[in-house]
Amino acid sequence: MDPHQLTRELHTRNDSKIVMLVADGLGGLPMTPGGNTELETAKRPNLDALAKIGVQGGSIPVFPGIAPGSGPGHLGLFGYDPVKYLIGRGALEATGIGFHMQPGDVAARGNFCTLDAAGKIADRRAGRIPTEESGPLAIRLRDVKIPGYEIFVEPVKEHRFVVVFRGAGLSGNVKDTDPQATGVPPLAAVAHDAASQKMAEVANQWIAAATKLLAGEKKANGLTLRGFAARPNLPSYEEVYGLKAACIAVYPMYKGLARLVGMDIVGKAQTLSEQIETLAANWSKYDFFFIHFKYTDSTGEDGNFDAKVKRIEELDAVVPRISALKPTVLIVTGDHSTPSFLKSHSWHPVPTLLVSDCCRPDGHATFGENTSARGGLGQFKAKYLMTLALANAGRLGKYGA
Amino acid sequence: MDPHQLTRELHTRNDSKIVMLVADGLGGLPMTPGGNTELETAKRPNLDALAKIGVQGGSIPVFPGIAPGSGPGHLGLFGYDPVKYLIGRGALEATGIGFHMQPGDVAARGNFCTLDAAGKIADRRAGRIPTEESGPLAIRLRDVKIPGYEIFVEPVKEHRFVVVFRGAGLSGNVKDTDPQATGVPPLAAVAHDAASQKMAEVANQWIAAATKLLAGEKKANGLTLRGFAARPNLPSYEEVYGLKAACIAVYPMYKGLARLVGMDIVGKAQTLSEQIETLAANWSKYDFFFIHFKYTDSTGEDGNFDAKVKRIEELDAVVPRISALKPTVLIVTGDHSTPSFLKSHSWHPVPTLLVSDCCRPDGHATFGENTSARGGLGQFKAKYLMTLALANAGRLGKYGA
Repeated sequence: MDPHQLTRELHTRNDSKIVMLVADGLGGLPMTPGGNTELETAKRPNLDALAKIGVQGGSIPVFPGIAPGSGPGHLGLFGYDPVKYLIGRGALEATGIGFHMQPGDVAARGNFCTLDAAGKIADRRAGRIPTEESGPLAIRLRDVKIPGYEIFVEPVKEHRFVVVFRGAGLSGNVKDTDPQATGVPPLAAVAHDAASQKMAEVANQWIAAATKLLAGEKKANGLTLRGFAARPNLPSYEEVYGLKAACIAVYPMYKGLARLVGMDIVGKAQTLSEQIETLAANWSKYDFFFIHFKYTDSTGEDGNFDAKVKRIEELDAVVPRISALKPTVLIVTGDHSTPSFLKSHSWHPVPTLLVSDCCRPDGHATFGENTSARGGLGQFKAKYLMTLALANAGRLGKYGA
Repeated sequence: MDPHQLTRELHTRNDSKIVMLVADGLGGLPMTPGGNTELETAKRPNLDALAKIGVQGGSIPVFPGIAPGSGPGHLGLFGYDPVKYLIGRGALEATGIGFHMQPGDVAARGNFCTLDAAGKIADRRAGRIPTEESGPLAIRLRDVKIPGYEIFVEPVKEHRFVVVFRGAGLSGNVKDTDPQATGVPPLAAVAHDAASQKMAEVANQWIAAATKLLAGEKKANGLTLRGFAARPNLPSYEEVYGLKAACIAVYPMYKGLARLVGMDIVGKAQTLSEQIETLAANWSKYDFFFIHFKYTDSTGEDGNFDAKVKRIEELDAVVPRISALKPTVLIVTGDHSTPSFLKSHSWHPVPTLLVSDCCRPDGHATFGENTSARGGLGQFKAKYLMTLALANAGRLGKYGA
């Protein structure tokens, strides 16, 4: 079920304000049997105060058992079915470094590699060439021109870069040129369908010219392209929800994901406190605010239970500043769980709290994994969270008479 | 997922009896933070007694956040996916006044309007002409004849009426003739697809003749048609469940909805007590009984918390009379929530109770919003309630070997 099938028709407008505070990777696990999770361990007087007047539940990012990346994790929270809408690898990489893909653009991830005298791959990652060396090389590749197309090359890290092709008639269904092996030459770019034929031709021309340009390099004298992907065609927040939406994030990836659904990127906050200042400063200009907090995920990925607890406490501390703005609907959630115990994204339902004057409080007095599993929102697919947000904001008309 | 995909093949027959007691708009909200809902406030010794031996859960009418009208609300309870099966506005209006639409019929909602000398709409609602004046006018429109078609005109209220077209080759995909503005003439009926071409032509002929007939009227000298809709094509209870089903309702709308899925309308009860008498009198003749109680919704719509509480207590009082008949499966639910706090239908899960000798009781001792949110049925889409009913009645075979 695509929620937009109904929200597109049913949404109405009013003066309500919706705030979605996303603590990346919020959900966790106990480190030992019988223990508490990171969220349950944290001192969280303000989240618990919200729990008392709100309703909680477990948000299932995709479906039970599926651990999502940042792309599907956020698409779900934004109400876009993460199985229906895919952001291809190249497009996600471009988005993640802050490149503004336009409709029709095709992005691919690039790897510098080492070719031997016969043109066969000797090292698929060019000896993990350091960023200081690979960056200038990526910039030099901007000199490769193909008439009729704009081509953007952006450094990433070590042997990696991104290339974006812009021009008429391009499509992303093109096979990787990385053979995933050494001792063989890079593959030609081959189109999987007729619509991608032009893209494959342009890629092969570009690869040939770029490889010629790299000929004098010792380590990075070749390259491969992977994960060709067009900019995903996502309907906008304005179209499917009637919401003027703002993204207040620190990292390019989350700004990029928000931009793909038509949010404005506001402010230049570098800290959570500055993000809340940005929220207050833009309060009158938007209906919906997506605030992204990264560090609950990164500490979880590091397996640093105590650091994740501290980050949750940092999040808890800013809650009163959000509440003071009197949002009609305040949601605290995450795009997925990142248990320190697993040091990775996981499939576990994400503790999610929703507060509004008509949310039907569920009587819980604390906020955590266990309470949310038994909360009034039950366990629900993340893609329905936006529908719940709109309903609680009085922004959805009745379905059918 | 369409539950009928499996029930159609798996249903079996036995002597079991299923009773579905629908308290319209049953779910509610507290009026103040920390308070109880209408159901939680009501004295409900009999419902609580059922809770002790039954299993409860939260029924989600459509999907999270979607508040349904009576049409999709009841289709869900009847096990028909309310997103897949739509009852168009005209068909619902005809159903609501008790008109028996036949397959192939197309219904539209009519408005009397006031036209100026130039034929432009001066008042879209004919000055909200009183029913005593508009009713006879609607009856007069029955004099308009179009060869090859039967046309039914039924008064509704004030400026509103219903017209139903019957004849070969009609289809409901026709644009409204109401321009939603004054100072412009009514629009012509225009078909959205080839299959509806004939319907548009017949409608335009009918409108021209009807307008001529109204020419002498001061206020209602014109009309517009909206919400053209064919009778929805719903498979019957007999086909998808193997159930001989009876509807015991007071209001035409609910009888009409039940008729659309092939239920027999039994009795002429005007009160809940008479409905239970009708149930007892027809006990041996049917497998399934849908009992509809309206007043939990209407009191909620009025925002009258106390009156809704009283209506729930009225419902509670008849429960022993149903139990005395020893139904194999007894379900108490609602088609949606109608919190007095919101004075409207809402999206909140509906407290739902199921009792059978194999229901797996969940240990709750009371019945309400909070217990049902944590009940043994979890939170589930309403469309699965009939499958649960059949299973508890021993009427579903095993799926696969």
